[in-house]
Amino acid sequence: MLKEYIDIGYVPDETDFVCEYHLEPALRVSFEEACNHLAGECSIGKWSDIALLNPKLAQKLKPHVFHIDKKKHVVRVSYPQDLFEFCSVSHIISTVAGRILNSNMISRLKLHDIIFPPDPVNELWGPKYGVGGIRDLTGVYDRPLVNAAVRPKVGLDPATHAKVAYDLFVGGCDMVKDDENLTDQKFNRFEKRAELTFEAREDAEEETGEKKMYMCNITAPTCEEMIRRANFISNIGGHYVMIDAVPTGWSSVQTLRDVTEELGLAIHAQIQGHNTFTGMEDHSISLYLITKLARLAGLDQLYIGDIDKHFHEKKKELMALHDCCVMDKVKGNEKMHILPQNWDGIKPMFPVVSGGYVPALIPELMNVFDKDVIIDCNSGIYSHPMGCAAGAKSCRQVIEAVLAGVSLEEYAKSHTELQAAFNDKG
Amino acid sequence: MLKEYIDIGYVPDETDFVCEYHLEPALRVSFEEACNHLAGECSIGKWSDIALLNPKLAQKLKPHVFHIDKKKHVVRVSYPQDLFEFCSVSHIISTVAGRILNSNMISRLKLHDIIFPPDPVNELWGPKYGVGGIRDLTGVYDRPLVNAAVRPKVGLDPATHAKVAYDLFVGGCDMVKDDENLTDQKFNRFEKRAELTFEAREDAEEETGEKKMYMCNITAPTCEEMIRRANFISNIGGHYVMIDAVPTGWSSVQTLRDVTEELGLAIHAQIQGHNTFTGMEDHSISLYLITKLARLAGLDQLYIGDIDKHFHEKKKELMALHDCCVMDKVKGNEKMHILPQNWDGIKPMFPVVSGGYVPALIPELMNVFDKDVIIDCNSGIYSHPMGCAAGAKSCRQVIEAVLAGVSLEEYAKSHTELQAAFNDKG
Repeated sequence: MLKEYIDIGYVPDETDFVCEYHLEPALRVSFEEACNHLAGECSIGKWSDIALLNPKLAQKLKPHVFHIDKKKHVVRVSYPQDLFEFCSVSHIISTVAGRILNSNMISRLKLHDIIFPPDPVNELWGPKYGVGGIRDLTGVYDRPLVNAAVRPKVGLDPATHAKVAYDLFVGGCDMVKDDENLTDQKFNRFEKRAELTFEAREDAEEETGEKKMYMCNITAPTCEEMIRRANFISNIGGHYVMIDAVPTGWSSVQTLRDVTEELGLAIHAQIQGHNTFTGMEDHSISLYLITKLARLAGLDQLYIGDIDKHFHEKKKELMALHDCCVMDKVKGNEKMHILPQNWDGIKPMFPVVSGGYVPALIPELMNVFDKDVIIDCNSGIYSHPMGCAAGAKSCRQVIEAVLAGVSLEEYAKSHTELQAAFNDKG
Repeated sequence: MLKEYIDIGYVPDETDFVCEYHLEPALRVSFEEACNHLAGECSIGKWSDIALLNPKLAQKLKPHVFHIDKKKHVVRVSYPQDLFEFCSVSHIISTVAGRILNSNMISRLKLHDIIFPPDPVNELWGPKYGVGGIRDLTGVYDRPLVNAAVRPKVGLDPATHAKVAYDLFVGGCDMVKDDENLTDQKFNRFEKRAELTFEAREDAEEETGEKKMYMCNITAPTCEEMIRRANFISNIGGHYVMIDAVPTGWSSVQTLRDVTEELGLAIHAQIQGHNTFTGMEDHSISLYLITKLARLAGLDQLYIGDIDKHFHEKKKELMALHDCCVMDKVKGNEKMHILPQNWDGIKPMFPVVSGGYVPALIPELMNVFDKDVIIDCNSGIYSHPMGCAAGAKSCRQVIEAVLAGVSLEEYAKSHTELQAAFNDKG
């Protein structure tokens, strides 16, 4: 009876969903009991209670706990793929990390990662554009892209919002985004903002000869309204939309991916509120898995973290997230609780990293991530003594210097904006 | 400068959103700095950085930190309502408990509650049916309703699923629901399951002379598909749908509320995965607030918790959640971090409580919650020695006994199913 779903050494079928968890049983519950409960609760329930199931089907849907490391609290469970509605991220995540997180048999549970088998991967969309498509949209192939959000984040009227976007664009930003807290408020209505900011973008494209992207936030109370806003953006010539993915949820993300297929829009996602469910070290869903699901669900670019003075401490984690965004095959890493994944033709998703202060950290960022990263430079840009256009320009100058193999100090001698950034920041 | 948004003693306008937080600053950050950062990040940003804002508008959108209790780590902030897209739960929650949870100025932050002012409350839908409407649908006015989920939770074929539902209905359940992990899988397709289970419901209604509700899970990968499934249910004569609200997200919930207005469907919501974001004592969003948002967004019934042997320890919390579901005016409770709320005509939402084992806890449950509660009796029903129909019947017998003022022991003498439940459970 205690064996139930425990089958150490079982080799998962290549069609199985394989999950790795951190598990700590509740008081007076053995590790084995907790493992069985976990596997049952995330599939067909207790084996002793399934009398009504067709025996053949029961065998087919049965989970296997095939790896247990009590010392490290690590458990791996394989779930037959027929348990899942393949293309539904909501269903997948609810099945393997839903009700079980409220169980009184388990004190702590974190879902580290899932290996997705080929069939479900093929049923999910993946990014429409991804890294390659976004490079085609922007015409930039040989360097990181530069992005900034319009600031102040909330409170500007549409005309001033468009003017700030214009300054960022002509300064050197490839992309300008709204803050996730700016949707459709009295002081800055969605339509007016979109119209004026797209005009500003056209002016900036003409002036600079570069392609510019405006990522307008279409997050809405309902999906119908979100779709209406996406259509509005498409109709006025936009290439991009932005969604606040955490509160709106997985079904909204998949709805948006669905409609953008036809509308030809790329999707930028903010997941800033993720700390509410990834923040607990030992009772949560890992940010790595959220990133993986975001790529599978079809987001084109995703914010994966900040670069700051603590960069070196979190470099490994950021690199793992970056690999999750862009690699075709990811190797497993036992220590980091990352399982192997074959992405099977799903396009790479462009990772966005907040680049902090100019100019100190961008070279380090490029050293680690090479060119396939979008650098979000708000602090550096807005704190520039000559204004935000010059701030954006100094970011581009840092990138130019790194690509030319010239030291920033040297490059600053002939580039005023970079020099000014240096003078200001030291 | 340090004062910035701190204005102790400020009396919030009755149109403001008032938030109460638990706050712990990061290392080397003062409590006041953390408060200012919190208020700014959740509104217009730093007061020193808002040069581009129209000064009149800036004053109008400015937040006020009006209450600080450093010892208890409690902070209250009032946000002007114009900061928000009134009818968007996603926007509201993202604004006051989004990015701020990832801030490096703050070590721990929990949003306890929000007072919603009258205008936004009126723009949100609230339940279509609520307690009164559901009583009209079921024709049951004088007792708690009895609900059960079809078990085994996942793995039954549609015909067996319908047969179990039939047994539960004729036994005495008013409502039968799907498990949240059952959506549309190969072994049990959505349409077939819905068709056969609604047939079973009709048979049971004829046999018992009672109204029966089947809450079919329409959770889907996209909102378009969810709407299609809602229409399917409406077309075959259903009155109810069920959504797995945590993974699908707030925009899906509001989308569903929107379409059910016309389709005339009541909504049952599971929020079983909420522990991923309510589970941290000090860095999260409270379950109380999630419950409040669920009622505002328009869910008709919501699962609020379990009754088990630890009932007495969590009685106060459950009673607060119950009040949040059904009261017209809620009084503030400083100790429980509950703010006062005038629901302004928003209908009460029916609370669902998992009732655990028959018969021990139902009388206690009725003693505390009176009749306005839906009792979810899975364990008691399925563990009944005479089968699940008898299990459901024994639940109804417990309720009859309590209402008749007869002891369960006495009532069991003339009621076989209750007697058998007793014999089994002691």
